[in-house]
Amino acid sequence: MVFDDKDLRPVRGMRDLTPEEYYPMFQVFDKLARVAESFGYLRVETPALEYYEILKAKAGEDVINEIYYFKDKAGREVGLRFDMTVPVARVISYRVDVPKPIRWYYITKVWRYDEPQHGRYREFHQFGIEFIGSSSIRADAEILAVGVEALRSLDIGDFRIRINDRRIIEQLLSKFGIPSDVKPSVLRIMDKRGKVPDEELLEMLRNLELSNDTAQEVLRLANTSESLDKAIGSFRELGVSDDFIKYYNELMEFLDMYGIRSYMDLDMGIVRGLDYYTGIVFEMYVTDYKLSVGGGGRYDNLIEIYSGKPMPASGFAMGIERLLEVLEQRGSLKRGLPQIDYYVYVLSNEKNYLSLGYRLASILRAGGSKVVMDTGEKSLRSALEYASKINARYFIIIGPKEISRGVVKVRDMSNWSEREAPLIEFGINV
Amino acid sequence: MVFDDKDLRPVRGMRDLTPEEYYPMFQVFDKLARVAESFGYLRVETPALEYYEILKAKAGEDVINEIYYFKDKAGREVGLRFDMTVPVARVISYRVDVPKPIRWYYITKVWRYDEPQHGRYREFHQFGIEFIGSSSIRADAEILAVGVEALRSLDIGDFRIRINDRRIIEQLLSKFGIPSDVKPSVLRIMDKRGKVPDEELLEMLRNLELSNDTAQEVLRLANTSESLDKAIGSFRELGVSDDFIKYYNELMEFLDMYGIRSYMDLDMGIVRGLDYYTGIVFEMYVTDYKLSVGGGGRYDNLIEIYSGKPMPASGFAMGIERLLEVLEQRGSLKRGLPQIDYYVYVLSNEKNYLSLGYRLASILRAGGSKVVMDTGEKSLRSALEYASKINARYFIIIGPKEISRGVVKVRDMSNWSEREAPLIEFGINV
Repeated sequence: MVFDDKDLRPVRGMRDLTPEEYYPMFQVFDKLARVAESFGYLRVETPALEYYEILKAKAGEDVINEIYYFKDKAGREVGLRFDMTVPVARVISYRVDVPKPIRWYYITKVWRYDEPQHGRYREFHQFGIEFIGSSSIRADAEILAVGVEALRSLDIGDFRIRINDRRIIEQLLSKFGIPSDVKPSVLRIMDKRGKVPDEELLEMLRNLELSNDTAQEVLRLANTSESLDKAIGSFRELGVSDDFIKYYNELMEFLDMYGIRSYMDLDMGIVRGLDYYTGIVFEMYVTDYKLSVGGGGRYDNLIEIYSGKPMPASGFAMGIERLLEVLEQRGSLKRGLPQIDYYVYVLSNEKNYLSLGYRLASILRAGGSKVVMDTGEKSLRSALEYASKINARYFIIIGPKEISRGVVKVRDMSNWSEREAPLIEFGINV
Repeated sequence: MVFDDKDLRPVRGMRDLTPEEYYPMFQVFDKLARVAESFGYLRVETPALEYYEILKAKAGEDVINEIYYFKDKAGREVGLRFDMTVPVARVISYRVDVPKPIRWYYITKVWRYDEPQHGRYREFHQFGIEFIGSSSIRADAEILAVGVEALRSLDIGDFRIRINDRRIIEQLLSKFGIPSDVKPSVLRIMDKRGKVPDEELLEMLRNLELSNDTAQEVLRLANTSESLDKAIGSFRELGVSDDFIKYYNELMEFLDMYGIRSYMDLDMGIVRGLDYYTGIVFEMYVTDYKLSVGGGGRYDNLIEIYSGKPMPASGFAMGIERLLEVLEQRGSLKRGLPQIDYYVYVLSNEKNYLSLGYRLASILRAGGSKVVMDTGEKSLRSALEYASKINARYFIIIGPKEISRGVVKVRDMSNWSEREAPLIEFGINV
């Protein structure tokens, strides 16, 4: 059986990461991990598979349809996780011993059966944090600060964080006279703003039996977007209640303390697709990149669904593949293979020369170098070509003539200069 | 809907990794990655899901039954990968541009629907290397050397590498008069040696219509185990052909050059469950731990199955969970949470003090420290208790009285000593 080239490609919507793709991604992982840890967040990981009951409890209709679902051999309904917030909420619900508040982060894979397209994969990586057990405004400010610092660490150019609040939207939808059971559908339509023409959104709203005036009001709301500084004014105009106005005044003070207020916009069309949000919600956008690179918010009711006990929480997730796409476009992604420090080539098949080659390689490795040992299957010429392709810095040639004089040849592959290095330089006495 | 405690546990046979479990595992990842990179191996990653056709092409009957298999929403047959050798072979088959030989490594998750028990999980982590494009004995010696150095890097105590050779076993089974089509079944039975009593193995062999004498010979072969130094003698006694004797003489020379021959045993019962091996096969055992912690070998025909082009290859994989279990038993696993450097607590809710707290935290983070900022929801006393639980080293108290004198209190949580630190020490002028 031989496979066609197309059969050898990864599963549709997924990607193979050869070293050329892996290392640039790993550098991004590393930077994001450092930011999260600098705020005291600790890393967690959970299984790729979850019981389907757990996944669907609070996924929201759109996301439930995207779950990779199946039955295992014992008939258990399971699915690949679509985010990390749900698994973390599950873990917190039975690990009641973990001291609160909990600051956890993750960098891992999630899966969604979505139509693959630009910036949308069926398997992708998320970096995210969860801050569990604090209902403080300071917690909301903190997760925004971690988000800003994470993006700043990446040399990703200008970015904006667009903030909204589920509580305020709910309040305003009530004011518009929209019944509670219709609100989730209205939110889902608001979430499509920008992806679907306004006319279509109006049509969809009217199909929910909203009057034309109400539909227009909802659309106007979804299109309210401005610098966060002006939010309080807008809230007053819209008739938002005083408690929320107080909340946003205080939030802005804390954002100032973090020095991050200038990154924030109010965008009342941001409602987030997931059903579990209960307070502030936000999305992160980078200049010239259309899709959001991350988003999050407060989800005070999610953990209670699993544990039966109230537990405030907030967090965000970023899409690593989208961040990489932006970095790629900006040319700020470090490309190419990591450097190999030495390639060791032995000109003879005699045991004593080979033995010296292996000893030298071992000494260099012990000193922290990355050393490739030739396998004796290449001519010197093709070994040199190969060493250059794998990004080797120095090419060491061990030849009988040189060894008789107690030296080896060392070629600097960056400029093809060559020198003779005494074996004693490597700590070898011959 | 509220879930029972048991519903909140991870999917059967899988594990949640909270920070207490994650960081010890990460330290093992890090050490193994360093060893692989010191030999010039580069990291790769592939999707969790593969097309089922790819997975089953050369899995072997036992492993095929362990694949997490399902149909996606478009009816495609897919499965969770059971190892990384198959996905890497697939990638190599279409990425023909990668210069050969290829040295790749991975540290990632794989899935097998096996009966969960001690040391066997349904989701587990593997570290492994693949050395593709070399048929040299030096390549076989190199992968054994990487394996030895990987185990040595872990402070795991004494270990042995038990070597065998599929070619030699095939040759001897032929000598015993066993037909080719029966050999795979015989290998599978040999692979059960040690897990199943000898009497039962004999019964199974006789059920394949082997004569009692032949069954006894096979069993004797499977039980042949001794120091590798004595292998050549055994091979001669068993009538192994000269080419293999020459191969093992040479291999031992290279193992000597790596200084690793003393770790090796010949064990003719090691055949490996996977169908793709074609030459040397080996398993790694650690003193006092019954299960193998790793294994591998040469698989010269696997890539051809996918690409249609011959491509020699060898490699190994280690089970991270098993390594961790051994380290745990030996007490050489570093436990506990990573240290948080500072916990910052502000005694006042006034903006100027809070602001100073956030500024101090930000300065400490910029200096590379991990800093947790209090959220204002805890009394000083309970914040101190909490800080101790999350392993914070210093607890900084910002109080109006102290600030008026230009200082903050810094408590060393390791010995509860306290000092006053001038704000100017942190670069803050008040």
